[in-house]
Amino acid sequence: MSLKLYGYWRSGATYRVRLALHLKGLKFDYQPVHLVKDGGEQHQQAYQQMTPTELVPTLVDGDMTLHQSPAILEYLEERYPQPALLPEQEPQRSLARALALDMACDLQPLNNLRVLQYLTNDLALNDEQKQAWIAHWTKRAFTALEQSLSRSAGRYCVGDQVTFADVCLLPQVYHAQRFKVALDDFPTLMQVHHNLQQLPAVIASRPENQPDAQ
Amino acid sequence: MSLKLYGYWRSGATYRVRLALHLKGLKFDYQPVHLVKDGGEQHQQAYQQMTPTELVPTLVDGDMTLHQSPAILEYLEERYPQPALLPEQEPQRSLARALALDMACDLQPLNNLRVLQYLTNDLALNDEQKQAWIAHWTKRAFTALEQSLSRSAGRYCVGDQVTFADVCLLPQVYHAQRFKVALDDFPTLMQVHHNLQQLPAVIASRPENQPDAQ
Repeated sequence: MSLKLYGYWRSGATYRVRLALHLKGLKFDYQPVHLVKDGGEQHQQAYQQMTPTELVPTLVDGDMTLHQSPAILEYLEERYPQPALLPEQEPQRSLARALALDMACDLQPLNNLRVLQYLTNDLALNDEQKQAWIAHWTKRAFTALEQSLSRSAGRYCVGDQVTFADVCLLPQVYHAQRFKVALDDFPTLMQVHHNLQQLPAVIASRPENQPDAQ
Repeated sequence: MSLKLYGYWRSGATYRVRLALHLKGLKFDYQPVHLVKDGGEQHQQAYQQMTPTELVPTLVDGDMTLHQSPAILEYLEERYPQPALLPEQEPQRSLARALALDMACDLQPLNNLRVLQYLTNDLALNDEQKQAWIAHWTKRAFTALEQSLSRSAGRYCVGDQVTFADVCLLPQVYHAQRFKVALDDFPTLMQVHHNLQQLPAVIASRPENQPDAQ
């Protein structure tokens, strides 16, 4: 086995894959891709040829090169099934995926670096307008998630098993806190977040604990 | 079996699930949710209680209620495996997922109704600025996809099997054409799109062929 992860310490999508790798106890070689320096290393030819979307992360596993973090999570679950990050039984199994994608499809892509760059460079928004944008989408997603978690959560998002949903929640709370979005209205979500923070795999995956953290 | 799909004729995420249902030959009861009328039926209490994100689609299968179209695709693939919409072998299997999510995570959520409403109502963008926003994200995603398809496509996105990637591509081409984004630079993508249009399941799934089409 030879796993290599290309990513960036503060990238939420990279954080998801780091979490899955650490939770499954998989060793990997980490290759930092600096998203800001020199206009962004993800746009340089070597990375672009490997990953045409010019987005991180990319996982290399032997002969395979994979992009898109939710697709990487599914791959890891099929290739390295234990410990499982998806419940075996329905409806928990589909719910874990759906809550993960509420974060991965309908929150993170709206608030990531390239969108904030467009708001700044192309639309000339000021800091207050950008802050309002980030808070708007975060609160919409977290309001829905809080309601879902009030039905499904145990120690974690879906009962007492760490799942894809938790793996996608952690980076969004990190992002919200970084951009100072108030999270007082989401007590269940924040309790789950607190419970997750106790896990060694989560501690090892945190952005500030990566070698390229600044 | 009793499948019920809540959605909207012009919603790209609903279109994905319609395609998967028709491709798998599954009968379903269609429940239109009008996304614009009366401020949007997806925000009304009955729908919101079922689906806290207030987004379409939602699939009901017997006792189960599922949201998030990529999670619904995975569910349908596991529950109703034939005909398969994911290749059995790697790396095609993960690639089909990744290309699907390039559309579902990094394109559609940026250009959907609620974001265009925010650009209009909160940021007061004019039509030209909104058109530039839509074209920017469409062209970025399609440029990367064209490069990927030049390596992977046969008759469809990944070889000659219809996969999740095709199911997520069709709604994005529909959206791009609706908003008059020029697609001349994407010949492989458009050839795949043309090939898909010949399939009876695709014809049955097209937005204009739905009972709530206007």
